[in-house]
Order: sequence, then C-alpha cells, then structure tokens
Amino acid sequence: MVIVMKPEAKKADIDKVVRYVSNLGLTPHVIEGQERSVIGVIGDVSILLDKPITTMDGVENVVRISVPYKLASRMLKPEDTVIKIGSVKIGSGNFVIMAGPCAVESYEQMIETAKAVKKSGATVLRGGAYKPRSSPYSFQGLEEEGLKILKQVGKEVDMLTISEVVNTQHVELVAEYVDILQIGSRNMQNFQLLTEVGKAKKPVMLKRGLSSTIEEWLNAAEYIMKEGNYDVILCERGIRTFETYTRNTLDLNAVAAVRRLSHLPVVVDPSHGTGRRELIGPMSRAAVAAGADGLIIEVHPHPEEALSDGAQSLTPAEFDVVCQEVQRILSVMR
Amino acid sequence: MVIVMKPEAKKADIDKVVRYVSNLGLTPHVIEGQERSVIGVIGDVSILLDKPITTMDGVENVVRISVPYKLASRMLKPEDTVIKIGSVKIGSGNFVIMAGPCAVESYEQMIETAKAVKKSGATVLRGGAYKPRSSPYSFQGLEEEGLKILKQVGKEVDMLTISEVVNTQHVELVAEYVDILQIGSRNMQNFQLLTEVGKAKKPVMLKRGLSSTIEEWLNAAEYIMKEGNYDVILCERGIRTFETYTRNTLDLNAVAAVRRLSHLPVVVDPSHGTGRRELIGPMSRAAVAAGADGLIIEVHPHPEEALSDGAQSLTPAEFDVVCQEVQRILSVMR
Amino acid sequence: MVIVMKPEAKKADIDKVVRYVSNLGLTPHVIEGQERSVIGVIGDVSILLDKPITTMDGVENVVRISVPYKLASRMLKPEDTVIKIGSVKIGSGNFVIMAGPCAVESYEQMIETAKAVKKSGATVLRGGAYKPRSSPYSFQGLEEEGLKILKQVGKEVDMLTISEVVNTQHVELVAEYVDILQIGSRNMQNFQLLTEVGKAKKPVMLKRGLSSTIEEWLNAAEYIMKEGNYDVILCERGIRTFETYTRNTLDLNAVAAVRRLSHLPVVVDPSHGTGRRELIGPMSRAAVAAGADGLIIEVHPHPEEALSDGAQSLTPAEFDVVCQEVQRILSVMR
Amino acid sequence: MVIVMKPEAKKADIDKVVRYVSNLGLTPHVIEGQERSVIGVIGDVSILLDKPITTMDGVENVVRISVPYKLASRMLKPEDTVIKIGSVKIGSGNFVIMAGPCAVESYEQMIETAKAVKKSGATVLRGGAYKPRSSPYSFQGLEEEGLKILKQVGKEVDMLTISEVVNTQHVELVAEYVDILQIGSRNMQNFQLLTEVGKAKKPVMLKRGLSSTIEEWLNAAEYIMKEGNYDVILCERGIRTFETYTRNTLDLNAVAAVRRLSHLPVVVDPSHGTGRRELIGPMSRAAVAAGADGLIIEVHPHPEEALSDGAQSLTPAEFDVVCQEVQRILSVMR
Repeated sequence: MVIVMKPEAKKADIDKVVRYVSNLGLTPHVIEGQERSVIGVIGDVSILLDKPITTMDGVENVVRISVPYKLASRMLKPEDTVIKIGSVKIGSGNFVIMAGPCAVESYEQMIETAKAVKKSGATVLRGGAYKPRSSPYSFQGLEEEGLKILKQVGKEVDMLTISEVVNTQHVELVAEYVDILQIGSRNMQNFQLLTEVGKAKKPVMLKRGLSSTIEEWLNAAEYIMKEGNYDVILCERGIRTFETYTRNTLDLNAVAAVRRLSHLPVVVDPSHGTGRRELIGPMSRAAVAAGADGLIIEVHPHPEEALSDGAQSLTPAEFDVVCQEVQRILSVMR
Repeated sequence: MVIVMKPEAKKADIDKVVRYVSNLGLTPHVIEGQERSVIGVIGDVSILLDKPITTMDGVENVVRISVPYKLASRMLKPEDTVIKIGSVKIGSGNFVIMAGPCAVESYEQMIETAKAVKKSGATVLRGGAYKPRSSPYSFQGLEEEGLKILKQVGKEVDMLTISEVVNTQHVELVAEYVDILQIGSRNMQNFQLLTEVGKAKKPVMLKRGLSSTIEEWLNAAEYIMKEGNYDVILCERGIRTFETYTRNTLDLNAVAAVRRLSHLPVVVDPSHGTGRRELIGPMSRAAVAAGADGLIIEVHPHPEEALSDGAQSLTPAEFDVVCQEVQRILSVMR
Repeated sequence: MVIVMKPEAKKADIDKVVRYVSNLGLTPHVIEGQERSVIGVIGDVSILLDKPITTMDGVENVVRISVPYKLASRMLKPEDTVIKIGSVKIGSGNFVIMAGPCAVESYEQMIETAKAVKKSGATVLRGGAYKPRSSPYSFQGLEEEGLKILKQVGKEVDMLTISEVVNTQHVELVAEYVDILQIGSRNMQNFQLLTEVGKAKKPVMLKRGLSSTIEEWLNAAEYIMKEGNYDVILCERGIRTFETYTRNTLDLNAVAAVRRLSHLPVVVDPSHGTGRRELIGPMSRAAVAAGADGLIIEVHPHPEEALSDGAQSLTPAEFDVVCQEVQRILSVMR
Repeated sequence: MVIVMKPEAKKADIDKVVRYVSNLGLTPHVIEGQERSVIGVIGDVSILLDKPITTMDGVENVVRISVPYKLASRMLKPEDTVIKIGSVKIGSGNFVIMAGPCAVESYEQMIETAKAVKKSGATVLRGGAYKPRSSPYSFQGLEEEGLKILKQVGKEVDMLTISEVVNTQHVELVAEYVDILQIGSRNMQNFQLLTEVGKAKKPVMLKRGLSSTIEEWLNAAEYIMKEGNYDVILCERGIRTFETYTRNTLDLNAVAAVRRLSHLPVVVDPSHGTGRRELIGPMSRAAVAAGADGLIIEVHPHPEEALSDGAQSLTPAEFDVVCQEVQRILSVMR
C-alpha cells in the first residue's frame, strides 16, 4: 500500500501517518519526492483496508497494490480448479454446455427441451423457478413446482440441473432439487445470499453483476469460498454500457482476464449477454476462442410461446448449429 | 405498443401478428410504410410484456410506449406524496436532513454524533448495523447490537432513525428498532426483499442501484407499493460511469426527472454519490437547487477512527457549514 | 416514424401535428390508444429528422424506426464489400493481418518489424507518423519524416502501408505516402476530416469512437461514402466502460452486429482494445471466431524501448504465436 | 511514480529497473514488501511517461502519482483566473450567461433572440455556423454567412459572441467574426485544432468530451495553454452513460471537482447536458449552486421551427424564468 501525501503536507503530517501505521504493526517507508512525499507500507496491509487514512491531515489518497481476494486468486492456487459433479467435469480443458429455457413452464416444455439439447451435447439443464423480473407485473416463475419438474426431467434424461436461488431462505430448498446453485447478476453483491450458498454443499455458478468490475466479481466469489465452498463457477453475462443495440455488452475481455487472475472455471452466457438471437452463434464461438470453460444458452422449443426471454431464446435446431460451430472451434484450441 | 416489421416481412407474417394480437383481446392497426410496415396495438398492452413477439417471423422489434410502473407514477397520482413520521414530514416542500455515521460503532460515537447533527438541523439519525461490503474481510457491522444503540440514541435525542435491511429474514427485526427501513443500492433489484419491506408497516427509503435506469428504479418502488406500502422515499446516491476521480457520479438529472415522473419524495446522498469529502458541500447545495426533498449525509465525530467510509465522512463542524449553505439555497427556492 | 402524444394531449394538438406532417408531403396515421394517441408517419421521413416535433404542444416524443445511414447499410447492398488494394483483398472471407509499431521511430525499427511481421503472415504494415496523445508533453510522432520511412520500408518488403491522418490539411500528403488512410477513434466524429478522406482516392480504415454507438459509427462511414469513397474498412478498438482492469473494453458484439447491419469489412484492434499484452492472443482468436475480417496488432522489435504504447506491444516472437493461433481458428470458420 | 513489481519478480529484474531509472537521472527507492517489491521513483518523472516500463521483466504495473497537466493546474496558479473580454468578466465570482440558438438560421431569428436574451441578463450570444451532425443528411449550418449574421447582430445589440470552430483551417476565419472560439465536445481531443486555437488571440471555450475524464479534459486545456493562450473557459455539457431518459448525463460533480483542480472558469450547458427542455431550469439552478461560473443555454424564438436541436431549446419566455431562478440562487452564494 502506498500513501500519497499532498504537496502542501507538513513534516508533522507525515510523522503522524508514520506513527499511525507503525502502531498497527506495519512498516512505513517515507520517500520524499520533488513535488510531494509518498509512504510505502509493508506488512499485512489488509488491516488498513477499513482505516480512514485519507482523512488524516496532509494525505491525498491511498493506492492499494494488492488485490483483496485471496482464495479465488491464482496467486494462492496456481493450477486450474476442476469441478466434478457426477460424471461431469468443468474447468481446465473440460468444456461444459448448459442449456434450457429461461423459465420452467411445464413438464412437457422441459422434457422436449432436455431431450433436444442433450442430443446436441449439453450436459447441464437450466430452467428458472424463481425469476427476478424488473417489473412486478411480469411472470415470476413456478417456484417449488418448477424445481420439481426440473429435477424430474433431469433424472429422466440423465442431465445435471442448474437453477437460480434468489433468497437466503430458499437455499436449502433449491439445493435439494438441483445440482448447481445459480446466483444471478442482480444478486452478485447480495452478500448474505453469497454467505448462505457458501455453506451449502452444492457447486455455485456466480454471474457477474451488470456493472461489477472484475475485482468485485472475484471478491463476491471470495464470500462464497470463505465459507468453505470452493466449487465456484464464474459466469460472464454482459455488462451495462452506453450501447443500446445489444441488451448488454458481453465482455469477453473479462473471460481472458479472469483466467489469468483466478483458478476458477468461467462460463459465458451469450443469451443474456447480447439479448439478440442472431448474435448468439458468433459470440458463443468467440467465447470459446477467448478461453471460456463452458457456455450457458437459452433454448426453448417454441420461443414464440415462452413466458419470458423468448426474444433471445434459440430453437433446438438453431442451438444444434451453434453447438456444432462451437465444437469446431474447440477442436483447434490447445 | 408499436410492433416494427422487417423490410422483408411478408403479408402472411403481418397477418399472423395481427391474429396473435387480436386473440389476446387487443386491437392492432397496421400502417404500411415505404420501407416497412408497423403495427400499432391498442388496449391493455401490459399483457404483451412477457410475450416473445420479436421471435415471430418478420418482426424486427417492439417499441414500448408506456412506462410499466403505475402506482409510482405521477400519471396515476398527480399531487406530491408527503410522508409523515411522528412530527417529521418529507416531500412537497418539506425538506429533511438525515445524518450520522456509515456504521454504528458504539453508544459513545452515536450519542456524540446525534447531538451534533441535531443541532445543525438533522431530524433523522442514520447508522448502519448490517453493512454490505465488497470484500468479506472488511468490517460487517454490529448487527442487532447496533440497532439497539441506534434506537436508544434516537430516543434520547428525540430523532427518527434509519438503518439498512439486507435480508428478508431481518425485515421484522430491523422494523422493530428503526423508523425508516433503508434498501441499499446493491439490493435495489433484490425483489424478494422489496416485496418483504412492502409488507412492513414502516416507510422505506429506496436507494437507486449503481447502474439502474430511472425506469428500473421506479419499477423497484412499484414492487414495494404493490404490497400496500406507499411510504416510499427515493434516494439518488450516484451511478457508475467511466469517471474515476469521483467514487460514483451523483446524477442530479435523475432527481429533476423523478420529480416529474413520480409523486414520491426523493432525497440525495452526496457522501456515497461523490466519495470525496470536499465535494459534499457543493453537491448538497446543487441537490437542493435541483429540487431534492432531502439529504442524507455521513457524519462521524472522528472520521480518522471510523470503521468504514471515513474518507467520505464529514466532521460535525464541516456538516454544520453544509447545513447552513443548504438553508440559504432552500430559502430562495419556490 | 412514430410520434407519441402525451396522455393529456388535446384533439387540437393532434390535429396540428397531423397538418404539420401532411404539409411536408408525408402521410400521418392516428391511432387512438386507451392511455394516449400515437401517430404513425409514412413517406420519406428523413426530412423530419431536423424538425423539432417534440416541441409541439401535446407531443411527448418521437420514435425513429429506420436507421439514418443508407450507403453503409446491408439493406441497400446485401452482398459483402470486398476491398482490393494491389494483390490484397479485404472482406467476405478474405482475412487481413495488419501489424507494426504504434509509432514510426526509425528506418531500422521499421525494417526489422516489417520483415518479422511479414514472415508471420501480415500483409499490411502499420506505423503512426502523426500521433494524437492525451498529454501535450508526450511524443507526437515523426510527421512527414515518419511517412517517408513507412513508404520506403513498405516498398522494400513489399507490404501495403497504413497510417493515421489527423487533420484535413494533411489528407493529401498522407495519401501520397500510404495505401490505407486511418481515421483514429478520437476523430471518428471529426466530420470535416471524414468528408475530406471521402474525397481521397485511397481506402479508409475508420476506427470506432471510444463512446460511439454502432449507429454513430455507421453514420460516420456514411460521411465518407457520401463523398464517393466506398472503400471503407471499419475497425473495432474498444469502448470506454466502468471497467478499469483493461484500458478499454473490446466490444466483439459490435463486430457480429456490424456484419449484419452493414456490408463493409470490419477488422479488430486487440492492442488498443485491451491495453494488455497478455490479452491480445485470446482476444485475437475471439475476434476471428466472432467473424472479423482482419486484425491490426501493435508489434515492436524492442517494446521496452518503444516511444509510445510499448506496454501493449507484442514482440515479433509473441506476434508469431498469435498468428498461428488465429490461423487455426480461421481454418475451421465456414 | 511507483513501479509495482510482480510477486514472482527476481532480484535481477528489480536491479534492471533500478539501473534503467537511474540512467535517466531519476532516483529509485526499492521497498521490499511481504508479497512483492515496489519501487518509488523521485525526480522529474514526466520523462518516464512514454517509457514502456511495464514491458520490463517482473514489472506488474506503474502507478502515476502526479497529474500530467501543469499550466491548467491550481497547484501552479492557486488563484482563480478571470477572463476579461470587453466589459465582460468571467470567473472568480463573475457569473456569465451565454444564450442563443443552436444554429444561426437568419438575421431575423438572431436579432429576435438576441434582444430577448439580453433583456433576461445574457451578455454573450451563441449561434452555430459550422454544425457537426451525426448524420451527413442533417442540416450542417450556414457557414461563413452565419458568422456574418452573428457578428452583425452582436454589434447591434452590444453583446459578445461565441461560435464553434470545427477545423484548423477555419480558426483564423472564425476568430475574425467572434469574441470567443468554441471547441465542441466531439473535438475535445482533436489536438491539431487545440494547438491552432492555442495560437489564436481569442478566448476559447473548451467543451468536455462525451466520454472524457476530468484529467483528459484538463490535458486538453493544457494543449491550448501550452501555445500561449491562457484564456480558456471549461464547459461541462454532459457525459455518456447507460441512462437513456436524458440525452446525456450532466455531470455537476465535475464542476465542483474542476474548481478544486484548476484555476480556470467553468460554465455549464444544461441544454446538451440533459437534452430535455423541462430539466433545463432545475439543472441550471443546480449548476450555479455547485459553483459554476456561468451557463450556456439554447434559446430559439420559435423552437418548433428550429433547424436543429429544437427539442431542447427554450423560448425566450422560458429562458427568462430560468434566469430569474438562477439570479435567486446566485444571490445566496458566497
């Protein structure tokens, strides 16, 4: 950590900061520059994170050098994490395809979808039972009934299942029905919920918040891991920018960056990331080429009848084309 | 609602959309343009919100004309809402100042702060007991112990109290201790939590999400009001932009806009909105001039010892100067 | 175009708009809704673009249905544009690699770079002679001397050349020396410059502005094409978002989108797009997979001695690895 | 400047950086931390700005401590700059109101506007002669004919004049006709143009770019001042964010910040900043309260006939109300 003093800071100000830092058991190094002084601080500076050093007289600002997350960092664990669920592996060259409708609507819808996407190569079936919707007047999901259908269909077709959990009180319930707990982007900084799924014994897929930095995203993963749950899958699903042509801006830079900063697997959601059916193919291919460990794609047997997100859902036939293209890219990746 | 057809759409495509819309009890009006056709739809189009019309053949996109929120809209209720809590009124010319530390740390800290801010004109005492923090290694608040202190001090100095609720399971508990429930920006789209505070019998202050549009913000208010709780105070606290000099970009345009779109009172948080002590004075004055119904400002008797957010906390003396400036602006408004 | 009236608009307001539109030779269609009326307008609505209809009494806003650009649109010209320069083709399956240093520094630097990048597969040599720099105290380029070196080296190694033009007065001069004129992102809406290169007889590579929407980008291309120069290559180079880990956010969604909206070829600049050497490989692969028609990459024989942008420059050896990876992705496309 | 080494950096890497820095005449201070080393660098580090230190082995990144601009900085010149043009003063408590139409359309339009806005308190008349427009099919301005009208009207009503210059070749011409040269937001980083107006003998109003940071804005001012022209007026006119309700997001935080960082006067353009007539009043008041040194507002005698930007233009009567509100706020400032 580097403490930057104001040009007009007095010697007494610097001395006070030096004493303050020393009293916390850290070692300050004062460097007197032409324009101003800076103070390098050595030791476990994490105890300084909450200290309001910038309020001290003569201090301009504080530059943090290290990242705040530890368990999620590749510095702590250099080798890729591989998450094993039944016979499915995710990470370190094990590519996974998750697919299914935005929301579970009926057994018929789910079984038709599941059989189709499995044939195309998907091994995890998605389907929302609790749907966070911007407007209270939109369809909110079938709730527990939806989870039952999802579990039943997953069993019948022999696929893993994933569904979103939106409330600390539901974690146990959802964990009974599905193989992977999903934290949606709106809840990426719902820290109580992160802590709760950290205590669950199920892998968690953590979607990046709409306006979260990469560091905040890895901090959120840290909340889960700190409770003892190390099976965290990151999911890039688009960030909010000024561009309005796409619903969000799918940020593949973050995929490449996260693979360097963290050992956790990262999958990509081009359906929410673009919000446009015609861009899902190109962006799925691009995600694979950027190094993603998997994809999660919305598929609906009859998009024009979908109760939510139909506009960005692929038909099973369109999904099959995307899977074939993805396989071709995968075949030339290391 | 207007359905925009693709230039290459066939007559059969248009006919299909017309039938689809008619079957839902709505009235379609086809307008054949030079380049393409558009279909105006009349009736209660809210039932179309979840329909995937854009997946139908020949459809390019759908343009929504009306806003999705109703109860929060000034169209439904043209006159300003005034929220009365004890002897305090908020809205429609009744200006409120809320102040206090980011986090409740001790009885001594709170009583010292409360006495000071009350003298400067604040009528609501703030203090966080459950703190949502980006990193799991930061101070997380005193929890129920903090609420007890807050309530005790509020009673002693005769001020209303406000504190954040971060979990559906805590709503009842927090509501027992405080006069106003705060929903933080990270939870603005935690719809389960919104629904729960909508059932509480206490006023709610709803902070705008870091990257929420004005419409999403009013939709979130709608979630609370739909449950029967109409005492919602909006709070602008800065949005995330590319600018890094300020912690966030306090968006006063939104204050002026919300006052036209909604009848709900709106207060401004310049502390989080700028993240810089020296900007709190100018932006408080500007908020008042833009038409805000109140301010919420972080004050700590000893910012350099604060357990969180010290960098953006004012001392009681600095806060007093801001209050005087604010009063001067208020005196020439209206 | 659809004119949306306010809920409180009177019949006289609607009549006035109808007359206004009719007098311009357009055909209005009034649709009376439950909440408000909307007026669809048929005819060449481009003449309405500059009319301040929203200032008329009772008008809430105007929704544009069509895009303003024509020559750049795939609607006007469905087949891909292929740009031919000497023996090099760009677009419609003809992939191009452009490479070279950020700035021309010396003959030695350029010849060493050119020989290396050509061996790896590049056919266009880049090198800035006029450098737009944020600070006036940074290196500004060798100017005409740099152009001479670039031309000389291009001739010696038999490569095409590209360099940026930053001023209307330089267009003729730069066009004498290079094969492709580059418009930098900071000048994407320097309309005088666009008009001037539109009159030049050389192909133009148009970089997307840092905060330009896709529509604004294609409008900028329209400025060039309107003057008769149809040889426009689009270049995605990253947009400005809240994320600070990367210098910019390379937006591959825009690449996929532009290939649908326009017939013009689009290349990708991962060097500026990410600002981080280690992300150039993954994002180059992803760009190809997303459908880009080419890449432009900064290469410097000795990045640690570069006069600008060294931090994001690849060495020739690193560049060679990227080219091999790109070729593998290319081999499985289509 | 602080050079941050990677955790895995070797002693040889550190030694190499130390030698490199020393050879440039600077003094390095190595601080060995628990996790990694950092190197503080003392001396005129501006010569390091262009050096690619991050490409050296073992270097993670470089943290700049000082700002790159000098002449525009309050550190160099603590007291406010006051710009005097004829009898008008701008800055340090001298408040200026500039008003007029977006574009000069005719003598009649200008004289009618000028008389009205002068009566309300404006002392500078605005009017565009060269209009940068997103689409090439929009009205582009009357060019020199417009400048003639502007000058003639300014003389008749005894007001100063301001108009935009969009091209280096026009600087001399525009300077002949107007009292203040305006650099538009799209040209804020057109460095050739900045340099050219820096050589002119007329004050310059520099609009902030749509996605420019405060530091980039002050760097742009530095380009002008470096040529000897110190009469620079900054103008905040809204930045591009995700919010679509307003055309741009007027950033008053930047006004308050710039007044601390720089001695230059700063005016605010609420017309472009919001793009909505009904928000101009509130945001004008807020700008004054935030500490702005002036306002520039679009006024058109008949907005519904305006050739550009009518939707955000005030009528003279509306403008008069805004001016009265602004005066009331001004009366209680300082």
